[in-house]
Amino acid sequence: MSLLLAHQVQQKHCLVIGGGEVGLSRVHHLIRAHAHITVVAGSNAHPEIIQLADSGKIHKLLLREYQTGDLQLYETGVRAEFVLDDIGPEDYARIAEDAKKRFAVVCCCIDDYELSTKIYYQSKYLGLPVNIADKPPMCDFYFGSMFNQDNLQIMISTNGKSPRLLKLIKDNIARTFKDVDLNKAIDNLGSIRAQLRSSVVIDDDLVSIDTRMNWIKDLTDFFSVKEWSLLHIDQPSAERIVGFFPGFPPREYEKFKELQNGEITHKMEKISLDPK
Amino acid sequence: MSLLLAHQVQQKHCLVIGGGEVGLSRVHHLIRAHAHITVVAGSNAHPEIIQLADSGKIHKLLLREYQTGDLQLYETGVRAEFVLDDIGPEDYARIAEDAKKRFAVVCCCIDDYELSTKIYYQSKYLGLPVNIADKPPMCDFYFGSMFNQDNLQIMISTNGKSPRLLKLIKDNIARTFKDVDLNKAIDNLGSIRAQLRSSVVIDDDLVSIDTRMNWIKDLTDFFSVKEWSLLHIDQPSAERIVGFFPGFPPREYEKFKELQNGEITHKMEKISLDPK
Repeated sequence: MSLLLAHQVQQKHCLVIGGGEVGLSRVHHLIRAHAHITVVAGSNAHPEIIQLADSGKIHKLLLREYQTGDLQLYETGVRAEFVLDDIGPEDYARIAEDAKKRFAVVCCCIDDYELSTKIYYQSKYLGLPVNIADKPPMCDFYFGSMFNQDNLQIMISTNGKSPRLLKLIKDNIARTFKDVDLNKAIDNLGSIRAQLRSSVVIDDDLVSIDTRMNWIKDLTDFFSVKEWSLLHIDQPSAERIVGFFPGFPPREYEKFKELQNGEITHKMEKISLDPK
Repeated sequence: MSLLLAHQVQQKHCLVIGGGEVGLSRVHHLIRAHAHITVVAGSNAHPEIIQLADSGKIHKLLLREYQTGDLQLYETGVRAEFVLDDIGPEDYARIAEDAKKRFAVVCCCIDDYELSTKIYYQSKYLGLPVNIADKPPMCDFYFGSMFNQDNLQIMISTNGKSPRLLKLIKDNIARTFKDVDLNKAIDNLGSIRAQLRSSVVIDDDLVSIDTRMNWIKDLTDFFSVKEWSLLHIDQPSAERIVGFFPGFPPREYEKFKELQNGEITHKMEKISLDPK
């Protein structure tokens, strides 16, 4: 089994070596994650890569072959000035700055077996996480099959057992979320969370962080993702919903929906959930 | 958005600092991925961590506080003998061996804010991917919400937008695969793939890797995951199925199922798919 991780590569340098179809697909993954992408594309780059560079989505496009120095393209040597044991708070800013100059990931997608093997070992030597396309033993990580919709990202891995089944499973999942506006569901729950944080103050005696967290947790479970996505919770309605705290608004969807217009809330009664 | 990656940490050293609940959950993630886990647990480790160490699932358990040297616990200094530009095939084995001594990931899950900040910057200095629990800005990666069933791994991320929605989405996905024996589906398709590889030889003129890949691709799409999981394809039935290549066996599920016993295959006619 793999260790599935969600990398935060926003504004971090990432390197793609190779300018073909596979290189392009790596670039798409990295663009979605807002990385600073450098592509060493050789002389014959995919037209879409050139277009992405022209539109500013690629940080740097090099239309030449790979050179050893590319793996440390942005490194400045600041690191050499420090000794691990002596690192203290006064050094943090410079270390962080320096760390950003290292590539967070290296993806090599070229057909040259000898060269890509060399790039693999050079990356290992430098301690850079590396993926050599189409050579599983030379991959610190794989790009799994991805499903993206709104703010939701799903990665599916069958651990190389049946690549084709991946597609079937992905189709199954896609069907589950078809026509569901996930962003709307996220926004609706987000509004309630924000309102809860601003109007219910943490108090050591009565309201703990746990009380608030459990309240929003229980409330979320009232409805399905689809039902949450069909609501329109603005700030006033969020205020009315949070007004029931520490009790709960009506659990019945039709009644809950009435909270979206403020007229009839006075008729509603708080419900309280059984403690589990 | 995050960059979701499937890390291959089998037999690689991974470090967990902290022996509480969160540390334990990191250990579980790493055990599933067959990592060599070192835990620096302090003097008060979670009983389950001690139990996992006793049963051999944890490579090394240190019941003491963190020390700076821990980040390089297994490093040998072999690296210093090499110069990047001069690395050649004769060095590969030693570099690979040396790279294995570096931690693939560092997870810090302690309550001491100052110390965990220090561990973060020390890790950045060393170029080790690091996650400081509960401090998003000090995380190169997050552990997303995971769904595991048989050989299938699914990671779900809402990019911090609504942690509670995660659970709802996970429940939705779990329902999709409830009562589906995914391993069986994987095994069934695997048998066909293996048979295809052994009995249909690549020939530059007639059968290319692409022809074979497209064939298994189209065949997979014949049925749903559930339908594939309910078949029992042994080697003889795989042989009968592959016998239709480059045409296809019956697309009708009930007829296809008859291939599981060999008696009536002679009555079947090959079908051929329209080229797309």
